[in-house]
Amino acid sequence: MKIIQSIQEMTEWSRHHSVGLGLVPTMGFLHEAHLALVKKSLKECQSTVVSIFTNPAQFGPKEDLDSYPKDLENDQKKLEALKTDVLFLPPPEEVYPSGYKTYIKVKDISERLCGITRPVFFEGVATVVLKLFNIVRPEFAFFGEKDWQQLEVIRTMVRDLNLDVTIKTVPLIREPDGLAMSSRNSYLSGEERRSALGLYKSLNVAKDLLDQGETSVPVLREKIRDVIAQNPFTNIEYISICDPHTFEECDQIFQKALIALAVKVGKARLIDNVIVERISCKD
Amino acid sequence: MKIIQSIQEMTEWSRHHSVGLGLVPTMGFLHEAHLALVKKSLKECQSTVVSIFTNPAQFGPKEDLDSYPKDLENDQKKLEALKTDVLFLPPPEEVYPSGYKTYIKVKDISERLCGITRPVFFEGVATVVLKLFNIVRPEFAFFGEKDWQQLEVIRTMVRDLNLDVTIKTVPLIREPDGLAMSSRNSYLSGEERRSALGLYKSLNVAKDLLDQGETSVPVLREKIRDVIAQNPFTNIEYISICDPHTFEECDQIFQKALIALAVKVGKARLIDNVIVERISCKD
Repeated sequence: MKIIQSIQEMTEWSRHHSVGLGLVPTMGFLHEAHLALVKKSLKECQSTVVSIFTNPAQFGPKEDLDSYPKDLENDQKKLEALKTDVLFLPPPEEVYPSGYKTYIKVKDISERLCGITRPVFFEGVATVVLKLFNIVRPEFAFFGEKDWQQLEVIRTMVRDLNLDVTIKTVPLIREPDGLAMSSRNSYLSGEERRSALGLYKSLNVAKDLLDQGETSVPVLREKIRDVIAQNPFTNIEYISICDPHTFEECDQIFQKALIALAVKVGKARLIDNVIVERISCKD
Repeated sequence: MKIIQSIQEMTEWSRHHSVGLGLVPTMGFLHEAHLALVKKSLKECQSTVVSIFTNPAQFGPKEDLDSYPKDLENDQKKLEALKTDVLFLPPPEEVYPSGYKTYIKVKDISERLCGITRPVFFEGVATVVLKLFNIVRPEFAFFGEKDWQQLEVIRTMVRDLNLDVTIKTVPLIREPDGLAMSSRNSYLSGEERRSALGLYKSLNVAKDLLDQGETSVPVLREKIRDVIAQNPFTNIEYISICDPHTFEECDQIFQKALIALAVKVGKARLIDNVIVERISCKD
């Protein structure tokens, strides 16, 4: 595995490997869900670049940029074991040099769900992803469906800015007990981790209710709130039942909807989601 | 000259002509200053694409989008006479399809000078230029120094977003009597046109004063104001004497400075600028 630590070297390498090039952008501390993206790229692409960059632009001033988990040595071993072609480690001072000024705004959809409490988050994500696309020039880029809203923001940016990259996705991956995989799970104590299972449980309860015919969003939302709130250390940020592309809140589930959660468990801000569909025998 | 009227066709053509490709983005109603950009591209590049697109995203709701001058037939003749390779005429509904959401913000420098009264202008310019870069994938792109602030915004975007395009420029070009060339000069009546010469005159007066040793910005600014205000139909929007890259206002001219003006003459909003330098025998 080649390790590249400068933007210029990455650009030069990419110019000679542009055909069938896959990019997996990450912030490191790699778990199975990241590796599923890498495996998919390795399988489908001629060569694969994995970037690790903890992007300061997507963290608010009171968020966990400084404490975000890192384990580069371990990440490197995991990527080597999969036979990743390139690990790209751009230095922050090259990504955002002194006097940096340019940011990408994807209106409307960036302002909902996570965008309400994290007003700079999607601007930071879109900006760094566009920069990585311009540096690496991949044909394919891989993102997880756990970050559903992020995925929609990136897809919208790709379409709107006429970018010549195909976005590929991997479904949300859970631990055996159901907790959605996340680097931030490392913040959880044993007790908090048990509480965190409430997120997945609440999604299942809502799905079951919907299967039984309950389509009222206020009823479903209250039920989700109850299930989560039964667990100590939980602090609900939002429970959204919305259109999976516009993120407009629904009153009632007619067809497909996204149920998305953001909950603080201890100091870990966790997100989870599921796509639900009303199955109607009459339609 | 090939005329291309769809983004997809433009993308395909560009993929086969990417080496040494030059792009001249315009809003049409071409005058000598546009043609100077085209000539420079034709001379320096292997092939040249000129785009004509009146970009709605850079006009405010009360601005002159609907009345912006057009003469496609004449533009086409002028470009053909120069042996331009491609005239690209992207349809507005393809550039900004329904549900379009993504905009580029170049902070700080977009908020000064023209950015104060035209708050969406540079966001619209940066967005459409980035889109054109992504569609056409030029190696070189050509812009005029009359739009000095726009040029700095584009240069900053290119550097910040790691774009693989080289920006080339052509100095501001004036009519024989000194009026800076602009498509908006067509809005001027005969009397207004005479008044509009006050912009150039005022810049010359300021330059002469500076050459005589006057470095105080308040003094120079007042003198410029006096010269312009002597002309009827003029309404000064700003007179800025500032750093040519950050656009921070100066108190005194020590080295290089930009003197930039925006003045309404009748209904035409005109801009003009000059770079001045204090020549000191002692330094």
